[in-house]
Amino acid sequence: MALADRWLLPEGIKELLPPEARQAELMRRRLLDLYNNWGYDLVMPPLVEHLESLLTGTGHDLDLNTFKLTDRLSGHTLGVRADITPQVARIDAHRLRTEGPSRLCYCGSVLHTHAANMLATRNPMQAGAELYGHAGIESDVEVISLMLETMNVAGISDPITLDLGHVALFSALIAKAKLTAEDKLQFIDLLQRKALTEYDIFLSGLSLEASLRERLAVLPFLHGTVDVLEKAASLFEGWKEESDAIQYLSDLAELIRKRFPQTRFYFDLAELRGYHYHTGVVFAAYTPSFGQALAKGGRYDEIGQDFGRARPATGFSADLKTLLDVAGVKAKVEPSVLAPSAWSADLHEAIEHARLQGHRVIQALDEFERPAGCDRQLVKINNEWVIQAL
Amino acid sequence: MALADRWLLPEGIKELLPPEARQAELMRRRLLDLYNNWGYDLVMPPLVEHLESLLTGTGHDLDLNTFKLTDRLSGHTLGVRADITPQVARIDAHRLRTEGPSRLCYCGSVLHTHAANMLATRNPMQAGAELYGHAGIESDVEVISLMLETMNVAGISDPITLDLGHVALFSALIAKAKLTAEDKLQFIDLLQRKALTEYDIFLSGLSLEASLRERLAVLPFLHGTVDVLEKAASLFEGWKEESDAIQYLSDLAELIRKRFPQTRFYFDLAELRGYHYHTGVVFAAYTPSFGQALAKGGRYDEIGQDFGRARPATGFSADLKTLLDVAGVKAKVEPSVLAPSAWSADLHEAIEHARLQGHRVIQALDEFERPAGCDRQLVKINNEWVIQAL
Repeated sequence: MALADRWLLPEGIKELLPPEARQAELMRRRLLDLYNNWGYDLVMPPLVEHLESLLTGTGHDLDLNTFKLTDRLSGHTLGVRADITPQVARIDAHRLRTEGPSRLCYCGSVLHTHAANMLATRNPMQAGAELYGHAGIESDVEVISLMLETMNVAGISDPITLDLGHVALFSALIAKAKLTAEDKLQFIDLLQRKALTEYDIFLSGLSLEASLRERLAVLPFLHGTVDVLEKAASLFEGWKEESDAIQYLSDLAELIRKRFPQTRFYFDLAELRGYHYHTGVVFAAYTPSFGQALAKGGRYDEIGQDFGRARPATGFSADLKTLLDVAGVKAKVEPSVLAPSAWSADLHEAIEHARLQGHRVIQALDEFERPAGCDRQLVKINNEWVIQAL
Repeated sequence: MALADRWLLPEGIKELLPPEARQAELMRRRLLDLYNNWGYDLVMPPLVEHLESLLTGTGHDLDLNTFKLTDRLSGHTLGVRADITPQVARIDAHRLRTEGPSRLCYCGSVLHTHAANMLATRNPMQAGAELYGHAGIESDVEVISLMLETMNVAGISDPITLDLGHVALFSALIAKAKLTAEDKLQFIDLLQRKALTEYDIFLSGLSLEASLRERLAVLPFLHGTVDVLEKAASLFEGWKEESDAIQYLSDLAELIRKRFPQTRFYFDLAELRGYHYHTGVVFAAYTPSFGQALAKGGRYDEIGQDFGRARPATGFSADLKTLLDVAGVKAKVEPSVLAPSAWSADLHEAIEHARLQGHRVIQALDEFERPAGCDRQLVKINNEWVIQAL
């Protein structure tokens, strides 16, 4: 590598410099304090784990997205975490073993072999909250509320659109269609890409009952505002699992609307994000100014199973760096107080006192240093050290 | 891997659970606020970088201690940072390019292929501060003071011993001895291990002037309290570089003593920790209750050179998890307020209000949930929601 390239970061890897880094730190604190105030206990899982732990209960995508390492001590393959959620599930299942619901939160760096989308970095700072041990709608309401509150606390001023889907509707349909594993993957792929022409051709190649074929054909169009739910409810009348999922989304939206009347709703019954591990409602927060989800999550009741302790689970996460960008917080340098160089006991005491009072005090190293960002100075007047405008 | 082992962490890898994780978060904040109040700007370098960047200006030890990854996007070899210091040096040299001194601080996870010592983990949380662009004693005084202040703020109540050494003394002696590269490595190794018998045999095998041989023979014994400096000063009288280094340590101790009169001093003129990249004073903070350094650092004026911008540099770092252990902060669960389940606009408002006031409020998900750690509850009395003892 040439000398000039040595300081370049790898593609898609970002770092935070002053003053943005301090803003990120302050946002981290606001989010973790929010989660703490809602009763979510902080956990700090490690950067690396045995690969099997990191990938337990997750899909092939996460495997591809995880950097692998060989542990020289044990010879085992380790992974650098690409997602903190499975780590928190392991902690709930095996380290804490709480009876009844447990609320956990986290904030830490993760690493991806490739960026999730054009707007993402390969080293997001993932912040999120997870709620285990409760299967009712109340826990979904709580985590979605906390996700929306995260947007407030992060300073996102644009109106939030809450995207809601429910994978049980799709699961019920696909079970009726009795697809082969291969067909199922293709089906999911076409639906996720909303590749409508290919989707129609694919459907016509399957041997299906007319009523099922008709409903599958409409599935890609079942997205939009609340009237989509009404349309879907009449379409699936008498189909129990599908109707239950639609009713669940309707109830959920009603409960969220009471708490967050400003929120806009968007329903997508063909939303299959995380289909491989989600088991119920899936949700995401969007703003008009940013083309990707600001936060997303869902219910994933099976994740603890592979750890030997299946518990209901629901949660969300966001990339703190993305929130920082979208919130458009003007990163400003915190002004400092300049203290003269050289040592005297009374100056030392005055500097200590000013710092304890919350002032940012830079003591010049010598008479030549002119530190940037100082708008005040410590000066001795009538034998007293005081802070004056510079 | 067997199911039961899946949740085990790799050897030497630790994670923080509630309530310790919250204590670690609060200590992180105290340290970063301390550094901020001293005028140190926060940077957040990435977890991984091109290996060449991470290892620039550092020794073979760091290379061995760094996990390597292949970047699928570029085919380049990346390293997971084992030390944040070289990253901060890169930022100073190439991203910020400040004229005059620059003060930077950081706190983040690093990863080691093997633990630094019996008491260390392989995933420390490294916190530290670096001061670039100033070569005088004032900058060493400032970073050592900040290191000692870190011990205070971390809540280390035991008296601190400040370990001081100066690699220039050893460098000057070894230059006079005109050793081959191989002999030099062996020399360093024997001295570091204080393998006195082998050291004597090794010395007797070298062709040296009598005056030099005599002084090298004494070198391993030049450690202890301040009288060591006097002994060394008379031993090296007339030897310029050696005398300068001894005088520097004496001046430095004098300046630190004024600011931290409680500090105990220990001098070790054969201290070679980080000899490969340190260029001047080296220092570390110890307490009687812990067998390893709590924080350590030194001057490393050459580190920016390989990035094309050599600047004087001095700094220190500590493992936040070690500080947490040694401080012995009793991790206690923050008590919560229990709010009843079910939704009403006035209850919702009362919960929001209590949280804004700083209360930790857990709303029960249903009538069956009994969240742990609640010592108060929200109850409606005379049509008003109030907080009562539980």
